[in-house]
Amino acid sequence: MKIQLGPTDIFFPVPAALVVTGSMEKPNIITVAWIGMMASSPPVIAVSLKNSRYSLELIKSTKQFSVNIPSAEQFKETDYCGLVSGRDRDKFSDTNFTPIAGQKINTPIIEQCPFNLECRVIKEEIELGQWMVIFGEVVETHIDEAKIDLPSKDIDIATVNPLVYLLPFVNIGSLTRK
Amino acid sequence: MKIQLGPTDIFFPVPAALVVTGSMEKPNIITVAWIGMMASSPPVIAVSLKNSRYSLELIKSTKQFSVNIPSAEQFKETDYCGLVSGRDRDKFSDTNFTPIAGQKINTPIIEQCPFNLECRVIKEEIELGQWMVIFGEVVETHIDEAKIDLPSKDIDIATVNPLVYLLPFVNIGSLTRK
Repeated sequence: MKIQLGPTDIFFPVPAALVVTGSMEKPNIITVAWIGMMASSPPVIAVSLKNSRYSLELIKSTKQFSVNIPSAEQFKETDYCGLVSGRDRDKFSDTNFTPIAGQKINTPIIEQCPFNLECRVIKEEIELGQWMVIFGEVVETHIDEAKIDLPSKDIDIATVNPLVYLLPFVNIGSLTRK
Repeated sequence: MKIQLGPTDIFFPVPAALVVTGSMEKPNIITVAWIGMMASSPPVIAVSLKNSRYSLELIKSTKQFSVNIPSAEQFKETDYCGLVSGRDRDKFSDTNFTPIAGQKINTPIIEQCPFNLECRVIKEEIELGQWMVIFGEVVETHIDEAKIDLPSKDIDIATVNPLVYLLPFVNIGSLTRK
C-alpha cells in the first residue's frame, strides 16, 4: 500500500558534498545535497544553490569551485557548513578544515576530505524559481593515497566511508495531502 | 598525500534510481546514477541520459517519467535494468517488477520500489556532449506505508534501505595521469 505525499523534494541517497568557492586567501564552504554528475566526456557536474547564497556570488565571480566529499566521521563539520553563512563566518577556521591549493583552479580543496573534484563553470546554467543550477566541468580529481586499496588499485570505498545524506527528517503527518 | 586522477566522472554516493518511461501498456525502465534534486518550490529533479537511449526517446515523446528508488535487496534487478535496452527487452517482465498507474501522470511507477516520484518534464533542458539533461517537476510522491515509522510518522530510512551507488570500480593505475 502506497501513501501519497503530494509534490515533494524528498530524494535519497545523495551526497552531503562540501562545495568550496572563493580564493586561497578567502575561501568559503557550503554543504550541498542538490548536486549530481551529469556527463562523462568531458565530465560535468551540476550544483544547485539558492539565489541568495553567498557561495553563488563567489562562483559567479570566479567561475570555479571544488566539490569535496566528506567521510562519515566529518558529519559535524558538514552539518555546520550548511547552517551558517560565509558572509558572517570563516567556516574553514570554525571547522579546522585546511584549504589546500587546487592544481587546475585557484579555488582550494579541503585537505581532510578524502575525495575532491576541481571544477570550472561552463556557460550553461538554469534558473529554477529561487534556485540556480550551475554546471562545472571537472578538470581534476583527487583521492587520498591512503584510501586506495592495494594491490587492486581501486578506491577502497569502505575506507573512504563517504557521508550519505538520507533525508529521513520528514513527518508524513504534516505532508499527507489526501 | 593526495593522488591526482585527472578529469573524471567519479562521484559518490549517488542513487541507483530506476527511471520509468512510456505508458502503462508499454513501459520501460532504465537505471540512472546521474540524477539529482535541483529545486524545492516547485520541486524539480534533473536526470541525465545519453542521447542514444531509448528512454530519452520515450521521455521526449510523453514529457513524463517516474523515479523509483530501489531497496538494497533489489540490486540484481537494478543492475539488469542498466545493462539491457528496452528496444530489445521488456524489463518489467524480465525483472518481475510490477507497473502500477501513476496518480498524476500516465507513466507507471514500480510497485516493488519503496519510494517513487512522478515527474512532468519542464521546458528547460541542457545538452552536454552526448548527454541530455532533462528536468522534471515532481508532481506526486509515493512511500510504502510499511516504511513509515510510528509514532514519529517519519520515513523509516533503515526499513526503506535504499540502494546506494558508490562507484568503487575504478582502477587508479589506469587513470593516473601524472
